[in-house]
Amino acid sequence: MDFKRKHLLGLEDVSAEEIKLILDTAKSFKEVLDRPIPKVPTLRGKTIVNLFFEPSTRTRISFELAEKRLSADTINFSSSTSAVKKGESLRDTAQNIEAMKVDMVIIRHGASGAPHALTKWIKGSVVNAGDGCHEHPTQALLDMMTIRDIFGDFKGLRVAIIGDILHSRVARSNIYGLNTMGAEVALCGPSPLIPIEADKWKQTTFYDVDEAIAWADVLMVLRIQMERQSQNFFPSLREYHNYFGITRERLEKVEKKVTIMHPGPINRGIELDSDLADDSEYSVILDQVTNGVAVRMAILYLLSGEKQE
Amino acid sequence: MDFKRKHLLGLEDVSAEEIKLILDTAKSFKEVLDRPIPKVPTLRGKTIVNLFFEPSTRTRISFELAEKRLSADTINFSSSTSAVKKGESLRDTAQNIEAMKVDMVIIRHGASGAPHALTKWIKGSVVNAGDGCHEHPTQALLDMMTIRDIFGDFKGLRVAIIGDILHSRVARSNIYGLNTMGAEVALCGPSPLIPIEADKWKQTTFYDVDEAIAWADVLMVLRIQMERQSQNFFPSLREYHNYFGITRERLEKVEKKVTIMHPGPINRGIELDSDLADDSEYSVILDQVTNGVAVRMAILYLLSGEKQE
Amino acid sequence: MDFKRKHLLGLEDVSAEEIKLILDTAKSFKEVLDRPIPKVPTLRGKTIVNLFFEPSTRTRISFELAEKRLSADTINFSSSTSAVKKGESLRDTAQNIEAMKVDMVIIRHGASGAPHALTKWIKGSVVNAGDGCHEHPTQALLDMMTIRDIFGDFKGLRVAIIGDILHSRVARSNIYGLNTMGAEVALCGPSPLIPIEADKWKQTTFYDVDEAIAWADVLMVLRIQMERQSQNFFPSLREYHNYFGITRERLEKVEKKVTIMHPGPINRGIELDSDLADDSEYSVILDQVTNGVAVRMAILYLLSGEKQE
Repeated sequence: MDFKRKHLLGLEDVSAEEIKLILDTAKSFKEVLDRPIPKVPTLRGKTIVNLFFEPSTRTRISFELAEKRLSADTINFSSSTSAVKKGESLRDTAQNIEAMKVDMVIIRHGASGAPHALTKWIKGSVVNAGDGCHEHPTQALLDMMTIRDIFGDFKGLRVAIIGDILHSRVARSNIYGLNTMGAEVALCGPSPLIPIEADKWKQTTFYDVDEAIAWADVLMVLRIQMERQSQNFFPSLREYHNYFGITRERLEKVEKKVTIMHPGPINRGIELDSDLADDSEYSVILDQVTNGVAVRMAILYLLSGEKQE
Repeated sequence: MDFKRKHLLGLEDVSAEEIKLILDTAKSFKEVLDRPIPKVPTLRGKTIVNLFFEPSTRTRISFELAEKRLSADTINFSSSTSAVKKGESLRDTAQNIEAMKVDMVIIRHGASGAPHALTKWIKGSVVNAGDGCHEHPTQALLDMMTIRDIFGDFKGLRVAIIGDILHSRVARSNIYGLNTMGAEVALCGPSPLIPIEADKWKQTTFYDVDEAIAWADVLMVLRIQMERQSQNFFPSLREYHNYFGITRERLEKVEKKVTIMHPGPINRGIELDSDLADDSEYSVILDQVTNGVAVRMAILYLLSGEKQE
Repeated sequence: MDFKRKHLLGLEDVSAEEIKLILDTAKSFKEVLDRPIPKVPTLRGKTIVNLFFEPSTRTRISFELAEKRLSADTINFSSSTSAVKKGESLRDTAQNIEAMKVDMVIIRHGASGAPHALTKWIKGSVVNAGDGCHEHPTQALLDMMTIRDIFGDFKGLRVAIIGDILHSRVARSNIYGLNTMGAEVALCGPSPLIPIEADKWKQTTFYDVDEAIAWADVLMVLRIQMERQSQNFFPSLREYHNYFGITRERLEKVEKKVTIMHPGPINRGIELDSDLADDSEYSVILDQVTNGVAVRMAILYLLSGEKQE
């Protein structure tokens, strides 16, 4: 199939065929990354702006690596959200970038929907690198690539997403993508952190993490985002760890293999025990990071409409 | 003609022939920007340092794009002015960059004259990307390119520069350049914001914006620089908008076409009504941005002394 | 000889043969820097991450230039140390970078030993660009290159390192390297700033700067690091200048040529008189900067194991 999409804003409306094409393309780029010179001329002369209105290290570096390995020219722009508080400012920034004739914009923004707004002003492609509490589609795609590498297929696979679902764009994108691919998704966390949309999504919900572990093939452990906890959704980090932290003790209570994923950066000892994060019997966290570059190369390539040389 | 200049520090002493050469060269680079791969190998292997001592987004990105499209290698350096308060420090920074054998330095600095000082310590070319309240020559050149695209010629063209002339390096560079090219320039703003040099420049001055609009072919609307208003040059932003803001109502009072320019970023609703900024009947603001990349490519190319391949 | 080292963490255990190979390689790269296009394709397609946890301008730019002149792809990451206070965080950052398949990491970090820790988590090469008060090997190598350019050999050469030896990674790396190469090294500074290790190093120590000047062929003047003086190691900057500042008057008291070096940035008028810093009869400070790019190219090339084209 041909990829007809111009932007990647979220996974809510992306079909199983499209996701399969992205993951297959990423697989072939992953082979490129193992070459002595892990670089292809596919996007030579194209300009990509990384427009990061929220601080980010790993996502920005992962995109920048993907861009450079496709031989694109890269411009970095980062800003605190405060500088662009007004809708007009994002629009003016966008229109300026458009006027400079840029081919693609990768945007991370604190406001849900900012990447969608951008598509109104930018003729080039827009990729959502995380918008507010909405979506983070490239993260979910790299998660799915990692799952497919291990399990081969999504059909009937049980993925439990654990933690602060309410504020998690990673959770939303994974729920959409995994459901589309035929996996079963369950949510688990303190009840104030399970969004009311959970009913709409018709996902199983666990309020007891041991039940979630007993049910799941994959535990997708979310980062507790300290900066969002001003409303006291749970009493303390220690309390959170006691009730929802993934520990070796909890995993050893079930008689089966469970795969642990985490989008990073990990709060070691809070949502996930430190030694589990590093235990390759359970953790595929660093495979996720490796797949991130391949998935982002695939997306940039498919959106560009270029034919691979 | 050959371009014999090594630095571009301002337009005060740049001849009509030189400006014409820059604009003609920019025109040919603008065609490059419309190619599928908008890149030429002209400056391959040359290193350009972007030395920004004042925060800037659009000027820095515009220069960086111009550099990358000429295939130069780019090094970004940004700093708050506080780190380089002493003259010695700028000199040491400059001498260090020189010792690293850099081909060109693009400098923005809060102190008027900083780029001129730099030429004493740097063997390579220096381009002024804005110095204090002094000059911003590449902005004026892109403004002139935009004007020439519309009107074909500068002879007898009436350009009114409106706003805070006192603190505007954009105004100074445009006054020099436009006068050189034979345009008539008028200044308009609250009287504390009209500099005493205005007499020396022998420009017409309007204190009533409606008179300026009635007179002009082009309105060059300046940004009210909030950060410079500590001395209370006018009572309030609302007051400023009432007396000097460019509104549709004001434009519709005159029976002729007026072209609106703005160097950006726009304070929408203060110096310029938001819907006018986006109305392509009047506004050429985004053309200015597009021309910015082409003009900067032209300047880098001409200063480098390279022959275009 | 072949260079078998994978990392460059310090000079403590680097042999005279290895140092000679680095300096010889740097010399050939210095010739590349004088070409019209000062660029070689040696590291094309390799990715180098500049991981700077301490603010740095000149070292970062020098490395970035070296990388670009070897045609490597460059990713910049800078952060205040505060963001990575915990050992786990540096480890997670490192493991993430490793998972993204990066070829080399250049690290500057406030904690002594951070680059050594990094080698446990990174399969690629690690270069120490300064760690705490420990080592800064590329600075010492560029210093040695500068000395060899002038004196031809290190045997019996007398180098006095003057200032805050206690906190200086530059001093430590030079002590190791210069001793290995057969130079005589003396330390000079206020007694609280001479480390107790000085005995172990068996260096001559001077507490009177005039004695050091009388003894030395080369004065390596260290920067007074204001940010480390919270413990009041000396009464005031004026006092420091009176007792240890290098002045023309002091140099003219000895009847011989003395060469002045400084790693920069200089506190003019504190550790070194401003006019001496700029007097090419004495100062080779800008030669050090030029050699810095060549030395760093040599190190990146030798660590990469590539054969030069």
